[in-house]
Amino acid sequence: MSFPDATSAEIEQAAQRAWQAFLAYRKTSWKQRADLLYQIAETLRAREAELVALAMKETHLPELRLKNEFARTLFQLQQYGKALETGIWAEFRIDTAVHDPASAQPDVRKSYVPLGPVAVFGASNFPFAFSTAGGDTASALAAGCSVIVKAHPAHPHTSTQVAACIQQAIQQSSLPENVFQHIHGTSPAVSEMLVKHPLIKAVGFTGSYVAGKALFDIARQRKQPIPVFAEMGSVNPVFLLPEKLSRDTATLADMLAGSITLSAGQFCTKPGLILGIKSEALQHFTSLLTEKLKHIQAQHMLHEGIAHAFREKVQLARHQQQILELIPFSSSTHTLEAKPVLSLTSASAFIDNPVLHEEVFGPYALIVTCEIFEEMLEVADRLEAQLTCTLMATENDLQQYRRLIDALTLICGRMIWNGVPTGVRVCMAMHHGSPFPATTDSHFTSVGADAIKRFVRPVCFQNFPDPFLPPELQNENPLQIWRTINHQLTSSKIE
Amino acid sequence: MSFPDATSAEIEQAAQRAWQAFLAYRKTSWKQRADLLYQIAETLRAREAELVALAMKETHLPELRLKNEFARTLFQLQQYGKALETGIWAEFRIDTAVHDPASAQPDVRKSYVPLGPVAVFGASNFPFAFSTAGGDTASALAAGCSVIVKAHPAHPHTSTQVAACIQQAIQQSSLPENVFQHIHGTSPAVSEMLVKHPLIKAVGFTGSYVAGKALFDIARQRKQPIPVFAEMGSVNPVFLLPEKLSRDTATLADMLAGSITLSAGQFCTKPGLILGIKSEALQHFTSLLTEKLKHIQAQHMLHEGIAHAFREKVQLARHQQQILELIPFSSSTHTLEAKPVLSLTSASAFIDNPVLHEEVFGPYALIVTCEIFEEMLEVADRLEAQLTCTLMATENDLQQYRRLIDALTLICGRMIWNGVPTGVRVCMAMHHGSPFPATTDSHFTSVGADAIKRFVRPVCFQNFPDPFLPPELQNENPLQIWRTINHQLTSSKIE
Repeated sequence: MSFPDATSAEIEQAAQRAWQAFLAYRKTSWKQRADLLYQIAETLRAREAELVALAMKETHLPELRLKNEFARTLFQLQQYGKALETGIWAEFRIDTAVHDPASAQPDVRKSYVPLGPVAVFGASNFPFAFSTAGGDTASALAAGCSVIVKAHPAHPHTSTQVAACIQQAIQQSSLPENVFQHIHGTSPAVSEMLVKHPLIKAVGFTGSYVAGKALFDIARQRKQPIPVFAEMGSVNPVFLLPEKLSRDTATLADMLAGSITLSAGQFCTKPGLILGIKSEALQHFTSLLTEKLKHIQAQHMLHEGIAHAFREKVQLARHQQQILELIPFSSSTHTLEAKPVLSLTSASAFIDNPVLHEEVFGPYALIVTCEIFEEMLEVADRLEAQLTCTLMATENDLQQYRRLIDALTLICGRMIWNGVPTGVRVCMAMHHGSPFPATTDSHFTSVGADAIKRFVRPVCFQNFPDPFLPPELQNENPLQIWRTINHQLTSSKIE
Repeated sequence: MSFPDATSAEIEQAAQRAWQAFLAYRKTSWKQRADLLYQIAETLRAREAELVALAMKETHLPELRLKNEFARTLFQLQQYGKALETGIWAEFRIDTAVHDPASAQPDVRKSYVPLGPVAVFGASNFPFAFSTAGGDTASALAAGCSVIVKAHPAHPHTSTQVAACIQQAIQQSSLPENVFQHIHGTSPAVSEMLVKHPLIKAVGFTGSYVAGKALFDIARQRKQPIPVFAEMGSVNPVFLLPEKLSRDTATLADMLAGSITLSAGQFCTKPGLILGIKSEALQHFTSLLTEKLKHIQAQHMLHEGIAHAFREKVQLARHQQQILELIPFSSSTHTLEAKPVLSLTSASAFIDNPVLHEEVFGPYALIVTCEIFEEMLEVADRLEAQLTCTLMATENDLQQYRRLIDALTLICGRMIWNGVPTGVRVCMAMHHGSPFPATTDSHFTSVGADAIKRFVRPVCFQNFPDPFLPPELQNENPLQIWRTINHQLTSSKIE
């Protein structure tokens, strides 16, 4: 079974249908949208075994990993639904009228409206949680937007079946069927046509820098530019601070070996860069990590393209100046297989070589040795923006090297203390984002219910009669939500 | 006294200084920043008479208008300071750790960090509230960003003196002097160099579409694209619904005549388009509005360039098909003077003529007569995005023509019932924004304390030890603010 690329006529039709569906869907209540998300989760759950099996075949990811991802996808749908129902997904502001003639002011109340049809481009490495029914789709639907997903060509069957579940849930919820549509496309022309279409009003994307940046540029060159929320990965540096490193050398080597090779290193939060200050402890850590990684078995990568890119990137990196190959690339009989690769270089060699700053997607890491702390700080200052930065440190270390925290807050979206960056908790406090080039919009997260805000914009009503206000702004507070009334948070009514 | 354009060396120096100042300023507490805003307000207040006199000379705006704007500018600084101090300016999310081994989750806490140095481009029509010490500067400083203002060439003296007040307040607050810098530039090259500089991390702009869009394009083409918050004006349609129109014909004509000509129509929220359904009442309204406007005296426009553009735009509009000139353009002996101009056309002529959809900055409005309500709805569907839309309607009208509310929420940032769009209340519930082309980022407002969010981005801390968290995220809640803890809003501590 093959999936032909959508034609321009089909894309035109999909956009028109998405717009019509949007015009109706935007008027649904938060409760209706939350119920849709719950229904999607239930419909998916009923087909878990089949969908996981399909994804295993298409992505070569192990069963347990996919089951966890599947559970996370359902949890995400439910959590966004809950955030919507309780109103904590956003801020509702009311400033009541001032009647004193000397300083009369109108009544002003602010809520949100959905942006319009959203084009979603899923990721190859997360067939569930960052794909067809993933965070972008969940948050766009929660926002009140219709969605067109372009299936990732690496898992078109899984995507098609997940899409069928969403469509079934829409039908069961008696909502317009074109609230969600699904198209295929291996050619970049399909994505381009979709993002250029005037009726598409926003884009959600998870994937490579090259593809994400291309969509960003297309969207910005439209007659009406639209927002693109592209999450494009990063190198996720880990900083080993002296006291912690000498105390917990083996534990750190263990943790990082696991994180570097989890799912064959195919995470946007994989730690690709490990920085330490020259010391015996660092040498010891390096040999422990090398040993650990050597004993980790080869894993299948997602698809030929990614396996190929991994080989290319690793080859490019090893041919740079002053690279010591701790575990060189070793080719395998199976073209999809990848074994861990570990290299080492000096901070001075690293700082001036942009090739070494680039993400290598797969089970690869580069250790960077710094002569002194100031050199580590210099590396931090020279890094591009990162989804995550990790500090392996005792509290003494944090105290002594506080300047590193200051430096890293300039470039990262999430800072982790004594943990690994892989594993992104789905919760309201999560920020999965960062300045460019890790994402195209540093204001928003793609994980956690705050992701819904990407697909709405504020709108305010001035002096509107109560019955014509949306329920979240009405005097009676029928949704029983928290609102900022005259600069005070309250869940009270307005008398 | 003349103000030479900043040279490229001066811009380079300003950007470097802004970066250094930012590195220190970003670490100030909310209280320190709020105090700076209050201090700026006080420093300005002490020089009110002088500054208003200077602005009168440079902008030809009347004294009362400038005094009101001056008061609003101080109020704005104070209000943003208050929002900052009380923590209601943003959302702070905490999800505490889950220790159950089966579903263990890290502690995650989310706050914000400032983006970096911000370039601010003020407006010609608001020498105080949307210029040097205006909303963009106030919100960038509140966010923890350093600021470089390029003075508007139409009021360089006022801008220079306001800048001096800000610099004095910074000095009095013992903050780094380059937290705020001020440069001049009549050439677009100055703006371009500033926006292109890699150390500039965001742009605030209020002005014309052409200039705003140019900055947006420059910013997006940088190696590291940066956000541009440009507010570029709109036509602000007013919809006269039948029952209201026939009941309050004279009042509506009065209100609109005032709003169209307030400050010579030089507001981004000036009602430039008035739509009604063919009726005797509409005819009566039209003649009343014509009479009112005829008797409003000529006013001085801001500067030669704007007066010239007004003449050009009005001439272009009158030469379109099917335009009835109710009050034709009349030239004046004084090149700065402008008298009100009013034209009328049919919905069918309007819909297909993009020239008539464009903003005419100045005392001009176009009445569009619709055959039936459906035609009015069609006009609404064909309009570009607007900062405001106004409904003149009884509750019966709103009930009967609810589809119009639905149509307008698609395109506007603020919807007004039975009021005029001019006059933007500075409060948290205000949304002064809209989709493109009225602004370049529909997610954010440029008025009200939510404007601060433009210049920060979220950052989250995972498993961080309490003393190393920013105060807003610490267990003890030392700032006594509201936070979302495990999905519940609370001002409690974490035990």
